[in-house]
Amino acid sequence: MDQHRFQKDLPFSEAEYERRLAKTRAAMEKAGVEVLLVTDPSNMAWLTAYDGWSFYVHQGVLVFHDADPIWWGRNQDTNGAVRTVWMGDDRVIGYADNYVQSTERHPMEDLAQRLIGMGHEGARLGVEMENYYFSAKAFMALADSLPSATIVDATALVNWQRNIKSAEEIAFMRKAARISEKIVDGLLERVEPGVPKNEVVAEIQRDAILGVGDDWGDYASIVPLLPSGSDAAAPHLTWDGRPFKKGEATFFEISGCYRRYHAPLCRTIFLGQPPDLFLAAEDALVEGLEAGLQAARAGNRACDIANALAAPLERAGIERGARCGYPIGLSYPPDWGERTISLRAEDETILQPGMTFHFMPGLWMSDWGLEITESILITEDGAAECFCDRPRQMFVKA
Amino acid sequence: MDQHRFQKDLPFSEAEYERRLAKTRAAMEKAGVEVLLVTDPSNMAWLTAYDGWSFYVHQGVLVFHDADPIWWGRNQDTNGAVRTVWMGDDRVIGYADNYVQSTERHPMEDLAQRLIGMGHEGARLGVEMENYYFSAKAFMALADSLPSATIVDATALVNWQRNIKSAEEIAFMRKAARISEKIVDGLLERVEPGVPKNEVVAEIQRDAILGVGDDWGDYASIVPLLPSGSDAAAPHLTWDGRPFKKGEATFFEISGCYRRYHAPLCRTIFLGQPPDLFLAAEDALVEGLEAGLQAARAGNRACDIANALAAPLERAGIERGARCGYPIGLSYPPDWGERTISLRAEDETILQPGMTFHFMPGLWMSDWGLEITESILITEDGAAECFCDRPRQMFVKA
Repeated sequence: MDQHRFQKDLPFSEAEYERRLAKTRAAMEKAGVEVLLVTDPSNMAWLTAYDGWSFYVHQGVLVFHDADPIWWGRNQDTNGAVRTVWMGDDRVIGYADNYVQSTERHPMEDLAQRLIGMGHEGARLGVEMENYYFSAKAFMALADSLPSATIVDATALVNWQRNIKSAEEIAFMRKAARISEKIVDGLLERVEPGVPKNEVVAEIQRDAILGVGDDWGDYASIVPLLPSGSDAAAPHLTWDGRPFKKGEATFFEISGCYRRYHAPLCRTIFLGQPPDLFLAAEDALVEGLEAGLQAARAGNRACDIANALAAPLERAGIERGARCGYPIGLSYPPDWGERTISLRAEDETILQPGMTFHFMPGLWMSDWGLEITESILITEDGAAECFCDRPRQMFVKA
Repeated sequence: MDQHRFQKDLPFSEAEYERRLAKTRAAMEKAGVEVLLVTDPSNMAWLTAYDGWSFYVHQGVLVFHDADPIWWGRNQDTNGAVRTVWMGDDRVIGYADNYVQSTERHPMEDLAQRLIGMGHEGARLGVEMENYYFSAKAFMALADSLPSATIVDATALVNWQRNIKSAEEIAFMRKAARISEKIVDGLLERVEPGVPKNEVVAEIQRDAILGVGDDWGDYASIVPLLPSGSDAAAPHLTWDGRPFKKGEATFFEISGCYRRYHAPLCRTIFLGQPPDLFLAAEDALVEGLEAGLQAARAGNRACDIANALAAPLERAGIERGARCGYPIGLSYPPDWGERTISLRAEDETILQPGMTFHFMPGLWMSDWGLEITESILITEDGAAECFCDRPRQMFVKA
């Protein structure tokens, strides 16, 4: 096939993909990995630009030290791969459709035959053992079909290379942040007692996909979360058709998305007069956020952010128990985090310029909840920069 | 905790959950499974009514022969579990937050300790080896922590129990179908040359979540897919900000969703005058669909549908290669299929009344594509019933 048959619309420059591949190969070298099978769709996209909702079937990218990566997946998805990846069409290979959700054969048997055909039957093969979509069965089928290979756990090997964002990536996250701001503005306007939740979600999903100016909106990797009242104790409830009520707080966990890059922003809206409990929690949380932003600087550790946040909360008698943030950037469902660093007391990773996090100190208490969060960028010097520019507070609509 | 503290809004009757549990226990008995770990979020919801976007961390439902199921997950998600599951609050247990995405410990180590504490350290434990979200690492961590247990592959054990829908489930799918029809109506109205794709997606996502009448819309398990022109060769591309163009066909793969139940409906819109190639393909495809619907009757086999479809397509010189459908119903991302039966030549499963499928004979050729599909119900006698009522054709807007 002629690789110039399609007008490819790669999100990033050639230099960016070269940089990513070089970093990944260096990490493979260090880990003693000869061939790396990347099955995390976010890692696949980061390395090759592949973009499609095909991660519900087995697929992957093979990374080699001495040849361009290979995209491997279902036959019908090779059409999407040749249209989106930067590699030549001869680096896209498919497996037959009767491997899909079959009780008789597994796609990893096809992949194993491909690797054997390329002379890699005895390779040290890295796989992402802890990853959505690389099932226990996939691992067993691959291992059984490659008895001479040495399979090594390369979980998060690529994810760690994604930690420090390039200028091109940060530009995408700024576009996502404009969309996040638009969503929050729409919430403040629309959330009123008596308005059904799904109506508000319908409008903010519309806002999210319309985007801002010429920057069209992509689907976020998590749908809007917006529990109210005592349900706000539960961080991951979605929506229903019940109305917002006076006297209840609702937190809104949302993110704009620009070409798979996210900048989450959570805010809480209280309808009516908040009880003192909420006002005290808001004060402590905002103080903790500000202390955390001050601690979020190059050279400090991930835990320094968590510890700075914890102090004012503890003074207010609030013990969270959960981590307070995670790296963000490019992602596919079901998560917009990068699954490397966690902002928690035990994580001593050194913060570096260009790292990006969702600083996410949600309060989920026994029968109420409060979320005020920021997506942040670690800068060359000074406190972290917030991607979004909206008041850091609980909004009260009397 | 008092389980009556929350007003639970269970989607289905008590009898429905009892029926599901009884079917699952019978299948466990047959497979020699003493304790079943269910990690597929669709299976978890089907068995317990649990609903939340928490499947990006490890969680599961334990099914026993002689006690109510246990929901197990991240501590902060127990608040969502006690609000949504039918079991008592003492059947909801959580693990500490520092297990989440940790490089030092795995949540399955916590689950293993729980099982040991319950006296199940030597159990025949069924796990869903081929399932999104039960990672290779999860399996290894569980097996390592339960050396005396016999772990058996119970992939799709629960999925197979979901094949025949109850009247309550079919009622939900009919509501989803009304939403699918509304989405398609909106597409026919809005898709015009020059209109950016993301603008159309924004409006249809709004339609989908607004729902129809009092039936609010839930998020579908797959985002809208709508490739145009030569990109329609690729079944799983999402959208961007480019405009629809005259002279191009776009297929729209969408589904309304009512409380996690789906009724997908795909239609193709051609802007301008379609070439003969398209008109001939449309004729053959519609003939194939009608033949397939006739073959989709109780007592026939899954492959009979595929074979009936294939005949008119082959006469028109079209060879598909891919399966032409799958069971549908309750689902969570990334797939709205149930991953049991496949409508393909090699699948001889007997069709039974109450089975529901997305009859999905997408044509993805080298540089064009066409989708006209139906969500169907196998009835007591006669041809399949279509959930949606929209013309079975390619729509042409001149």
